[in-house]
Amino acid sequence: MTDIIVNKVDKPGVLPTDDKLGFGKIFTDHMFVMDYETGKGWHSPRIIPYGEFAFVPATIVFHYGQAIFEGMKAFRAANNQIAVFRTKQYLNRFNRSAGHLCIPPIDVEEVQAGLFKLLELEKDWIPGTLGTSLYIRPFIISTDGYIGVKVASTYKLFIILSPVGAYYDNGFNPVSIKVEDKYVRATKGGLGQAKTPANYAMSLSAQAEAHKEGFDQVLWLDAVHRKYVEEVGTMNIFFKINGEIITPELSGSILGGITRHTVLELAQNWGLKATERQISIEEVYEAHAKGELEEVFGTGTAAVISPVGELSWKGQKIKINNNQTGEFSKKLFDFVTGVQYGSVPDEFNWMDKVNN
Amino acid sequence: MTDIIVNKVDKPGVLPTDDKLGFGKIFTDHMFVMDYETGKGWHSPRIIPYGEFAFVPATIVFHYGQAIFEGMKAFRAANNQIAVFRTKQYLNRFNRSAGHLCIPPIDVEEVQAGLFKLLELEKDWIPGTLGTSLYIRPFIISTDGYIGVKVASTYKLFIILSPVGAYYDNGFNPVSIKVEDKYVRATKGGLGQAKTPANYAMSLSAQAEAHKEGFDQVLWLDAVHRKYVEEVGTMNIFFKINGEIITPELSGSILGGITRHTVLELAQNWGLKATERQISIEEVYEAHAKGELEEVFGTGTAAVISPVGELSWKGQKIKINNNQTGEFSKKLFDFVTGVQYGSVPDEFNWMDKVNN
Repeated sequence: MTDIIVNKVDKPGVLPTDDKLGFGKIFTDHMFVMDYETGKGWHSPRIIPYGEFAFVPATIVFHYGQAIFEGMKAFRAANNQIAVFRTKQYLNRFNRSAGHLCIPPIDVEEVQAGLFKLLELEKDWIPGTLGTSLYIRPFIISTDGYIGVKVASTYKLFIILSPVGAYYDNGFNPVSIKVEDKYVRATKGGLGQAKTPANYAMSLSAQAEAHKEGFDQVLWLDAVHRKYVEEVGTMNIFFKINGEIITPELSGSILGGITRHTVLELAQNWGLKATERQISIEEVYEAHAKGELEEVFGTGTAAVISPVGELSWKGQKIKINNNQTGEFSKKLFDFVTGVQYGSVPDEFNWMDKVNN
Repeated sequence: MTDIIVNKVDKPGVLPTDDKLGFGKIFTDHMFVMDYETGKGWHSPRIIPYGEFAFVPATIVFHYGQAIFEGMKAFRAANNQIAVFRTKQYLNRFNRSAGHLCIPPIDVEEVQAGLFKLLELEKDWIPGTLGTSLYIRPFIISTDGYIGVKVASTYKLFIILSPVGAYYDNGFNPVSIKVEDKYVRATKGGLGQAKTPANYAMSLSAQAEAHKEGFDQVLWLDAVHRKYVEEVGTMNIFFKINGEIITPELSGSILGGITRHTVLELAQNWGLKATERQISIEEVYEAHAKGELEEVFGTGTAAVISPVGELSWKGQKIKINNNQTGEFSKKLFDFVTGVQYGSVPDEFNWMDKVNN
């Protein structure tokens, strides 16, 4: 492993107060950067001041989108211990995404060492109020300075850090979701299982239309039959039907969420039946009609658990659990955030401590 | 229309010789740039020296891929007249792509004026050898400096110019194509009809695997049935079966190519039956078995016409026209390039002259 060079800012930035954070708007003083070049591999890991980089307009990522990213979080516990949630899971997924985009894999140990060195340096930027955290955004872009549709030979890896506010402005409230029957996010044989800009570009029109119609998010259906549930917005989705926890299986077009994985592990550990399988939107509506659809919720790094209070499919609306947060959703949220903020023992070793 | 400010380089670059051009590797001295801001609209059109721009790592296009581009060409005729092929068709498609990506539309007249002013300035960069041309790359990227999945409120439009060499190194030779049955490029309800980085990111793995197996390109099949032909590589595809010219219809997942459109117009004008319809890969193979598959070719801005000599679908290879360029493919290529280089009268008004 190469030594990480550290080049600090002359004057540290002013720390924001926890009530002024928002999401992804404020960045810390420093970032981690690494370069790749064919023949040389990943090299020059360094921590430098957060700031502008110069790119020629022909830089290939602007044209052909060969890029990937991750989204993970660090938390400050009541005892001031700083820790990252499931680091390896995220960085291993980063490498799986790299494979889908023909991007050279990273050395997970090396990048993790860089991240933790950066976190030590930026520890004062990590907020402590319940609901706040430090959002960690590793990403890789292709940087060849000429245009041609091909796998690039140069890349840059960045890790940037953003202190973020509570995801829920008004507490833990159920969202209203449109079941999308016009747009498609991803298809088997495509990039739906990778964390890559393409999937987010796909979602813009659908999200914009759903917002205009008064919904918070969209629930994506599969590209082929337009009936099997895939994911919601940029989160995975779960249904609690007649006591059973069901989430769509990872069939190639769905992102394998780390929170999704965490929820499946927890449900099984708690003795519940938790199943990954194909589930059609008809099945969800039928379960509702029979009074068996107990809870619906999304899972993701940003919100952890996002209860769904209403679904609308082809204009037909159903209310879930009387538009109230369900008991299981609440239990999951309390447990996972409890571990993250140190109020619940970390019995599954999810938290990777930062020296601080 | 706002005045276009021109800021010239101090010292012009050295012009490359026509045999050293390659594709997309050399850029001219200047570029056209314009900015967008919500509330202000597109503003500050300017021609400035080609060079680096500074972007913060949080620049949203790196993360969520809200971007579009075009690819068009200017040619130098034997009499030295410089002209652009079907400018409006390309710029109108640019605006259709903008719509699919929630990017604010451009004023086509204004951008065209900027492009032509840039071309006048860079006229010496436009090569004249048959097969060479000036590749024109307009593109728009979202530039908000913070991360959140949403439609951006700031954008930059660039037009950069690259003198390019002959597409065919060894003459006009048929290519060998793998019919892709694992990866999918686009699906109805997705972005396949837009010229956006996402579609090109989708193609990297399939192209890399096909190259490894010795094929030049892939032929994409539809996402739903995996049987209907979509497009080849980054070109549209045509079949000549029993005298009829057939190309897949624009059903939502295929790019509406300008060369595709040109070929359909020409075929009809020449009294041939030219049809846009669903065509399955089985139908192509059956036509071949009956001896009725006369020609297969791709159409695109880069190659104009790219004859297909071999198809391979699930390991089953067929040779088309004995791996020779077909008569109709050759006639199309000669006519379109003849108009582009001024040796054939421009009876359809395809060429937009640059003052030079």
